[in-house]
Amino acid sequence: MRAVGLNPHARGYSPPVPLGSVMPGGSLGQVVASKNPSFPVGERITGPAGWTQYYVTVPREPMRVQRGAKSVDVMSVLGGTGLTAYFGVFDILKPKKGQLAVVSGAAGATGLIAVQLLKIAGCTVLAIAGSDDKCAMLKNQYGADYVWNYKEGRAAFKEKLRQLDGGRFVDLYFDNVGGWHLAEVIDRIAQNGRICLCGQISLYNSKDPYYPLNTMTLVTQRGLMQGFIVIDYFKQFPEARKEMSKWIAEGKLKGEQTVVEGFDKVPQHFLKLFDGSNVGKLLVKVGEESAGPAKL
Amino acid sequence: MRAVGLNPHARGYSPPVPLGSVMPGGSLGQVVASKNPSFPVGERITGPAGWTQYYVTVPREPMRVQRGAKSVDVMSVLGGTGLTAYFGVFDILKPKKGQLAVVSGAAGATGLIAVQLLKIAGCTVLAIAGSDDKCAMLKNQYGADYVWNYKEGRAAFKEKLRQLDGGRFVDLYFDNVGGWHLAEVIDRIAQNGRICLCGQISLYNSKDPYYPLNTMTLVTQRGLMQGFIVIDYFKQFPEARKEMSKWIAEGKLKGEQTVVEGFDKVPQHFLKLFDGSNVGKLLVKVGEESAGPAKL
Repeated sequence: MRAVGLNPHARGYSPPVPLGSVMPGGSLGQVVASKNPSFPVGERITGPAGWTQYYVTVPREPMRVQRGAKSVDVMSVLGGTGLTAYFGVFDILKPKKGQLAVVSGAAGATGLIAVQLLKIAGCTVLAIAGSDDKCAMLKNQYGADYVWNYKEGRAAFKEKLRQLDGGRFVDLYFDNVGGWHLAEVIDRIAQNGRICLCGQISLYNSKDPYYPLNTMTLVTQRGLMQGFIVIDYFKQFPEARKEMSKWIAEGKLKGEQTVVEGFDKVPQHFLKLFDGSNVGKLLVKVGEESAGPAKL
Repeated sequence: MRAVGLNPHARGYSPPVPLGSVMPGGSLGQVVASKNPSFPVGERITGPAGWTQYYVTVPREPMRVQRGAKSVDVMSVLGGTGLTAYFGVFDILKPKKGQLAVVSGAAGATGLIAVQLLKIAGCTVLAIAGSDDKCAMLKNQYGADYVWNYKEGRAAFKEKLRQLDGGRFVDLYFDNVGGWHLAEVIDRIAQNGRICLCGQISLYNSKDPYYPLNTMTLVTQRGLMQGFIVIDYFKQFPEARKEMSKWIAEGKLKGEQTVVEGFDKVPQHFLKLFDGSNVGKLLVKVGEESAGPAKL
């Protein structure tokens, strides 16, 4: 069996996926057969099902979905991508009221939550996305103070940053894309500025993952740049979900999802993450919900 | 008056030096005339004299040099460059016993102290310098476990890192040089690795200060990279000096200095920082010490 990684340029945070094995992936599903009285047929759970229609698992309590919970909350806000935003914002960026923050990939599953968390923390936020529609949504429905369509290119971004919020430097950057977005933000980083490296999607399919950055500006401005991965915070998930659930209930935080269908088209759907066609969490529906019982 | 900066590519941490004004610089000097009974003629003080032979100041107590103190301790270990090493190591790298650390510019004023502080913290240290003599000194006199002459070039450095200490990844990097040293260390950074950006001397005279780095590896390995400047720690200087003085007394920590002479040659001497001709702190002697009194 030959093992392949999805990105040959960087050591991954998961082991390479062996050929012929199930692709990893999170899921929201429904129990169709059970020997566990705590998780009877019809109960809904989340879990690392992978790209599959059915799987066998020993569910643990944190996987249980509260009755009445909406899938967009379960999978977007309180799922892996929402939790990623939570820990990136609060553990790495550590926002203070009044700071100027930038979020790239802001219409994606993680970025959309990061924008709202930074607003809850009292920051002024520039949200970056790849279409005017997404930008309008970020401004009108998610509270971004400023928006910018990155299709305008690097030179326009440099100018946008130079004039941002009356010419202020950038205190916080939630980076989902890397590349020239990151290079330009570093050039405009404020003293003691903080950058969380959440993802670098502009480089995922690049043959050259090395991108030119001005590290001297990080020295002179005492800039921090830190990568992180949500799984390291596993023990803090319940606490984070509790706080985010409160904000959901107060109407301060909401998710967004794009649902597509067809198990046989999962690989094509996956590629939507790279062409900008999803807004918020991208979910693939691979079966029908049912309340009916089933026997083992 | 036109203001010029020494590096036009990055916002500096000090204001540009106006043409015709005194170049900033630290000094160890002797009082030659005084109206302050606490600092009589003959007393030795440190201070921001700049590039000058005489200057007028209102000395504060922290500037006083203890009687019997050696210039190498005052200027190298307990001066700005030694304190830089102290805060870079303990506030940014936060070393743990047994970690694998790399120091670039290790024979310089700051690097030499960083190597020793990391050894005091119980790390295994690779010290990088620009000559075989400097490497031998770092190994034989300063306790570096491994040494490497960077004149061997990038490909050899990649191989050196790959085999370092039995193939371990790098937990801590005290970076004084930037450029390909930094790029290669990032490629070999350990999980939760920490990089302090102290200086980027390989880029100071480069027309292109943007250097290609693999930021995705920082994400997958949860790497931290942080710039810092010693002046931000001003209030902690006395505490740091106290701890380092204890290590000096115990023989665990020592400085190194290269003394050159001639006030008229200060600009040429300054350039030695860039050609590798100094070991440890570079001092220019611009006058003779005297115990004799003088009148205002």
